[in-house]
Amino acid sequence: MFPMKRRGLLVVVSSPSGGGKGTILKELFRRNENLKMSVSATTRAPRPGEEHGVHYYFITKDEFKTNIENHAMLEYAEYCDNFYGTPKAPVEKWLEEGHDVVLEIEVQGGRQIKKVAPDCVSLFILPPSLKVLEKRLRGRGTETEEVIEKRLAAAADEIRCVKDYDYAVINDTVEQAVLDIEAILAAEKLRVSREKDIAERILNHA
Amino acid sequence: MFPMKRRGLLVVVSSPSGGGKGTILKELFRRNENLKMSVSATTRAPRPGEEHGVHYYFITKDEFKTNIENHAMLEYAEYCDNFYGTPKAPVEKWLEEGHDVVLEIEVQGGRQIKKVAPDCVSLFILPPSLKVLEKRLRGRGTETEEVIEKRLAAAADEIRCVKDYDYAVINDTVEQAVLDIEAILAAEKLRVSREKDIAERILNHA
Repeated sequence: MFPMKRRGLLVVVSSPSGGGKGTILKELFRRNENLKMSVSATTRAPRPGEEHGVHYYFITKDEFKTNIENHAMLEYAEYCDNFYGTPKAPVEKWLEEGHDVVLEIEVQGGRQIKKVAPDCVSLFILPPSLKVLEKRLRGRGTETEEVIEKRLAAAADEIRCVKDYDYAVINDTVEQAVLDIEAILAAEKLRVSREKDIAERILNHA
Repeated sequence: MFPMKRRGLLVVVSSPSGGGKGTILKELFRRNENLKMSVSATTRAPRPGEEHGVHYYFITKDEFKTNIENHAMLEYAEYCDNFYGTPKAPVEKWLEEGHDVVLEIEVQGGRQIKKVAPDCVSLFILPPSLKVLEKRLRGRGTETEEVIEKRLAAAADEIRCVKDYDYAVINDTVEQAVLDIEAILAAEKLRVSREKDIAERILNHA
């Protein structure tokens, strides 16, 4: 093995609702111990069963605003009178340690990340077709017909957001989608643009 | 599977001498039937055992010059009073058919390809260290000491050419290098920049 400690990859993952992101990420994490999932901060109250530092960092609005002022958030948004966002420090620590860090995030947040961390790798997970998306939304059995109709109506615009991402992963089977993501992460680590000193490392390597 | 016929990838592969490119490509081709190796054209005479269309396309200087004038060569060079180069037509045909096409080529040729085919994927295969490179050059037993010394002296400059390539593949073990190349090819096919119509394909896919 090449004996260098490498900085990890910052991996942005987005998907239209019903794209199947959750299942794919679960399997990806099961298979890859080096991966870390970023934990968001929020000012909303914890729900039953939610743990601080696991599901969210639960912080006050004052703390959140101070973080914003100190540029301590990678991205954030206000939603229903609460703040949600990604604290920079734990992500940075993991990257330094060589872990790849996944940010599961919606499209607006993904755009913010690209601006502050242009060397991130961004993936958009897509259903193979609108019909499959509809089937999956209905299959959950958790949404009302009204909600399903709304989501399908929004899906076309959501799917077109793929243009802002580096890679498109089609969620046809979970197995193939996970293999695709693993290939992307492996390949990105071999990019010369991420290894500007590679020639000197080889020349100086005993 | 996503049922679309896709254009193949044009894959430029270079290496310092002794980098181990030959062994890696042989194993890569053994494992990937969809890959095609580009055949160069040359004006030099065939050597015993060399077949037209297999080892080279053997053509006359007039034919070669006409090809250059007609922009029918992807790249070419003159060496020891003979021309060597890559005919465009067979490569283009394979790409259209969906095959990935490998051009095994030196650095100058690689630069020419990047100019005429900026969507190519370029890989530079590197030895893990100068010491390993030296060991491999000596291990061949085919070179004189003088040639080995010359090659080692040139190796540093050759290795620094990695900066002109998209990906650096370290030839530590053949198995890992082949896996790395397979990951790169798989990932490149998922790049949104290669699939500009992907959103519409999904939206229109029954």
